[in-house]
Amino acid sequence: MCFLAKAVTDLGGNVTRATTVRDDVDEISSAINEALNRKTDFIIACGGLGPTFDDKTLEAFSKAIDRPLELNEVALEYLKERYRRRYGDNPREKFELTSSRLKMVRLPRSATPLRNPVGSAPGVYVKHRETVIVALPGVPEEMQAIFEQSVVPLIRELVGNIFRSEGSLKVTGLGESKVAPLIDTVMLTSPNVYIKSHPRHGQGPTLELHLSIVSESEDVAKNSVKRAMEELSRLVADNGGEVELMKT
Amino acid sequence: MCFLAKAVTDLGGNVTRATTVRDDVDEISSAINEALNRKTDFIIACGGLGPTFDDKTLEAFSKAIDRPLELNEVALEYLKERYRRRYGDNPREKFELTSSRLKMVRLPRSATPLRNPVGSAPGVYVKHRETVIVALPGVPEEMQAIFEQSVVPLIRELVGNIFRSEGSLKVTGLGESKVAPLIDTVMLTSPNVYIKSHPRHGQGPTLELHLSIVSESEDVAKNSVKRAMEELSRLVADNGGEVELMKT
Repeated sequence: MCFLAKAVTDLGGNVTRATTVRDDVDEISSAINEALNRKTDFIIACGGLGPTFDDKTLEAFSKAIDRPLELNEVALEYLKERYRRRYGDNPREKFELTSSRLKMVRLPRSATPLRNPVGSAPGVYVKHRETVIVALPGVPEEMQAIFEQSVVPLIRELVGNIFRSEGSLKVTGLGESKVAPLIDTVMLTSPNVYIKSHPRHGQGPTLELHLSIVSESEDVAKNSVKRAMEELSRLVADNGGEVELMKT
Repeated sequence: MCFLAKAVTDLGGNVTRATTVRDDVDEISSAINEALNRKTDFIIACGGLGPTFDDKTLEAFSKAIDRPLELNEVALEYLKERYRRRYGDNPREKFELTSSRLKMVRLPRSATPLRNPVGSAPGVYVKHRETVIVALPGVPEEMQAIFEQSVVPLIRELVGNIFRSEGSLKVTGLGESKVAPLIDTVMLTSPNVYIKSHPRHGQGPTLELHLSIVSESEDVAKNSVKRAMEELSRLVADNGGEVELMKT
């Protein structure tokens, strides 16, 4: 989830919510329906595409968007390809479409499978009304590979050319209650810069401040964060705190 | 989130969903409302109770349950206590109720503050219709301290005496598609044991199988997991896989 949230944010997307649900068809489909009801542009599901009984994402999808699960021939071809890559022509490992394997290639009607370059279960793409829904396997290597290959282009298409800039400061010697009004001051002069404060437990009061912006202009993005970091550093120093640059 | 999900599960609670939302009042209150609409027994929020502008949980709570924020005298007393513990009677650090501090002690009407033994912002308890809502600070040390002190007793009261038992097996040499029907077999004879399968990327096919159960009887819980682990190990070995006990 951290990987996906960071990757989507870095592409300029606005991650509104991340939800973890039990392996329960009703819970999963209700979470998808809640996201559809919020008119989310893009839903990425992760996990639950494998052959075991606790893999319930496709059934939940089918229920949420009311499209029956059907054997998808392209997905089946991907699964066979994977088997060939793994076992070659070993006659003892002839591919059989067991019920466990069938489970991975029965997709909601009109869904498009996304090739899995490192594992068995293909990803799934489906457009439902105005929302793109993508399901990725939960194994991190497989999730990341399909994300890079098939999902990044879809997000780029949706988001367009957006530049993101960020930086972090470490503030010591001033409590969060004393830094809060300084942040408010900087946000008045740099209203597009988002400043998030993370209190850390240290010897004395310690805060990490994370500044970020997205803009259609790379220059505007970089300069705005730079200016806000300078102003914030000056204010903290003027009020007796110490500032350390963590990242630009 | 991992800490809370594990702690609640260990107490016998059934964690149905974990949601991460942006620092946005509308998003946070809509997430709370969705949980209330699902008739959740217990909502635990974490983070967003501090003095900075990105701390928006109390405002979102107030909106979701439609109770105005009001200065809570008990919460104010907790905050002053904390200040005295930290600065003693140092005349240069006389407590002032600045707007940043006031923000931490304005709670939804009829809410109960939960003493924070290691930080400033108190936790918040409120009962709304049939749902208990608790808000904890996001700093892990503070969240865990208030959880242990004030939330564990509330969960115990709700859940009663439930025993949980679990164990894990590592299976190598058999792919997930071949292990899936073996899991199905064991679940027929041990229907109350939940078996979750986690594929791992290794040299060959590697799976971690996690078995768990909750029961009102400690003996039933322990014996059921033990029996299911033995049967599963035998089936895996009979089918040419290797089994290693990870945890009992």
